[in-house]
Amino acid sequence: MKEMHEIGRRAKQAQTTLAAAGSAKTDQALRACAAAIRKKSDFILYENAKDIRAAEENGLSEALIERLTLTEARIDAMANGILEVAAAPTPVGRVLWGETRPNGLKIEKVTVPIGVIAVIYESRPNVTADAAAICLKAGNAVILKGGKEAQQSNKAIAETMRGALADCGLAADCLILLEDASREDTAALMKLNDCIDLLIPRGGAGLIRSVIENATVPVIETGVGNCHIYIDKSADTAMAASIVENAKASRVSVCNACESLLIHREALERVLPAIAKRLRAHQVEMRGDEAVCDLLEDAVPAGEDDWGREYLDYIISIKTVGSLEEAIAHIRKYGTGHSEAIVTEDYQTAERFQQRVDAAAVYVNASTRFTDGGEFGFGAEIGISTQKLHARGPLGIAHMVSEKYLIRGNGQIR
Amino acid sequence: MKEMHEIGRRAKQAQTTLAAAGSAKTDQALRACAAAIRKKSDFILYENAKDIRAAEENGLSEALIERLTLTEARIDAMANGILEVAAAPTPVGRVLWGETRPNGLKIEKVTVPIGVIAVIYESRPNVTADAAAICLKAGNAVILKGGKEAQQSNKAIAETMRGALADCGLAADCLILLEDASREDTAALMKLNDCIDLLIPRGGAGLIRSVIENATVPVIETGVGNCHIYIDKSADTAMAASIVENAKASRVSVCNACESLLIHREALERVLPAIAKRLRAHQVEMRGDEAVCDLLEDAVPAGEDDWGREYLDYIISIKTVGSLEEAIAHIRKYGTGHSEAIVTEDYQTAERFQQRVDAAAVYVNASTRFTDGGEFGFGAEIGISTQKLHARGPLGIAHMVSEKYLIRGNGQIR
Repeated sequence: MKEMHEIGRRAKQAQTTLAAAGSAKTDQALRACAAAIRKKSDFILYENAKDIRAAEENGLSEALIERLTLTEARIDAMANGILEVAAAPTPVGRVLWGETRPNGLKIEKVTVPIGVIAVIYESRPNVTADAAAICLKAGNAVILKGGKEAQQSNKAIAETMRGALADCGLAADCLILLEDASREDTAALMKLNDCIDLLIPRGGAGLIRSVIENATVPVIETGVGNCHIYIDKSADTAMAASIVENAKASRVSVCNACESLLIHREALERVLPAIAKRLRAHQVEMRGDEAVCDLLEDAVPAGEDDWGREYLDYIISIKTVGSLEEAIAHIRKYGTGHSEAIVTEDYQTAERFQQRVDAAAVYVNASTRFTDGGEFGFGAEIGISTQKLHARGPLGIAHMVSEKYLIRGNGQIR
Repeated sequence: MKEMHEIGRRAKQAQTTLAAAGSAKTDQALRACAAAIRKKSDFILYENAKDIRAAEENGLSEALIERLTLTEARIDAMANGILEVAAAPTPVGRVLWGETRPNGLKIEKVTVPIGVIAVIYESRPNVTADAAAICLKAGNAVILKGGKEAQQSNKAIAETMRGALADCGLAADCLILLEDASREDTAALMKLNDCIDLLIPRGGAGLIRSVIENATVPVIETGVGNCHIYIDKSADTAMAASIVENAKASRVSVCNACESLLIHREALERVLPAIAKRLRAHQVEMRGDEAVCDLLEDAVPAGEDDWGREYLDYIISIKTVGSLEEAIAHIRKYGTGHSEAIVTEDYQTAERFQQRVDAAAVYVNASTRFTDGGEFGFGAEIGISTQKLHARGPLGIAHMVSEKYLIRGNGQIR
């Protein structure tokens, strides 16, 4: 606990030097990080092999081991990711608003670093480099707490980046990786209100719930996506089938994948066979209500707990609805505020769906898979915010800032 | 606990009707609220008298009773405040950004209501009307938890406004006042993550600390202001004295009042007597370090715990510093990130102070008392945010919104 506080204090102290360094120096340091990661790829792969061996010994699933595994190509992609962040415009020091008040006070609102950002994440070691680069770019110090299964890889990446920061004259403590953090350490981290300005959990629903319940520092909730596609009665059959196939099956493990399909009763017989055909090609299990099961021999009956499920797997739930309103009410009840889509040819229906569905991203006639920093043109992202404060949707470099008011006067009093 | 959940659910349901009603209808309802408050002023004063009687019986301080007391003039001001909110432009539905992506997807980022906002506040009954109007204006339902000492007054104001909302065809549950809420009820309110999108504590340091420690819903921290003024060696004496007098003594009970004075050693003998003269006129107690006490006969020695204190009283701490850096380090250690000021004639010193001091508002040559929604030109405010997320500084109508991405496509898949 005391040690955690010391770590927080070190990060806070280091951040002031980063903020003073300016963006040219920060970008230079990020480029040095990328170069160092390339140069030390053998070391990073060697450490990664330890994690993989441990994972195999511990009987982790093939999918998890795949996510954990680094290759030359993945390390190269990691370095390129950092270079892209370095090349992006700085988000700090932008004047967002300004006015001269009647009393002559000149007020400006400018963007500033948030301060110290903690990120708690799971499995994939490239997050260490990605998250650090995004935070550093905006002048923030970062405290990283990665998954135990990736600890040697994370340590190697963090050490490499810290060395590069120090070589460029920045404090290495701008990037601190918590090593061997116990459950108590992590709990203490979440309550370091005098050192940590923002905590971002990046991972599964369990991790996010734990952070929400335990943190006293400000949190941006990310990631859980129970995304729906509603097929309106006016939907184009081919478009509906293509969008559902893409949103469900192009990559099942991601938060913007479609988990649940709502189909207007009047369109069911027309569109469902075409959709089912596409899903079968990917061996997607279809869990449907009675009308769906009547129409599809290979559908299995959905239970009540299917509607709220984020499968992250080759499974989709399918429900028949009688109206747009019923679809919206279902999404309000079971959605997680991530990405929701409608397929429709009707103007009023499209407008009402976009107005009334409350989510970070609301689509008409497009796949939910587009909710992504890169696809939105924001560049690298640190997660998808599913809460209402600060930023909603893809969290990019531009969102890792706070603001302050600068007021210049000439002796004004009130 | 179960009852709190039911209240949250009612507010959430009511909010959907408010969001669908549109801004013309909302503004009409706010004008009706103002008219109703004027019309029922006798009733409100009658209920307020009960609170005042109880406060007198319970031996509350004169200052507290003064804050509690409503008059015809105060009720009129309350109604006018609501009318001003009604007349302001709607913050909802603004397009903040938009782009057509290379694949033809049209992405827009638009402002939307946050949803359900809970406000926990103390003493002054006019907050009931102010906070409700600001939240409602932006399409949010509001759950209010006022101070026990103002309960009859709050109830009368809330009832009056609920009646006006219902008369205008909006759900009365857009505004819910928690009556006779126990400590357990309040704790449950802070954890209603599936109903409450934002919780704003508005009150003293104890209330805010309790909310930070107990809430699992997103919180915007407001209000605690340990505001400093740093008198640089180049400061103009008359300007320094005028600004310090205004910032300390124009209104001592507010969060933007100055609590602590830092004076460059080389300016001490020149500026301190002039400042002390102005403070003595208001019977301000001066608690100084050794150099200050040597110079002022009526200063008392400051203890270590004086530096972090938000007195909210006719008391000020005064410390001598050897440099700008020492002043900035002191502010970093003891400041609360609210409002900090420098008095200087030196360009570089002014620039460095504004760049390096991390607070919601950083002033050069002006009183900290200007940190206020009205003074910044934002109109009515619900508090001053002292945290880094979502909004910092005065929280006005424009900040009571979230955003969502609306994406229109033509069958795009990824």
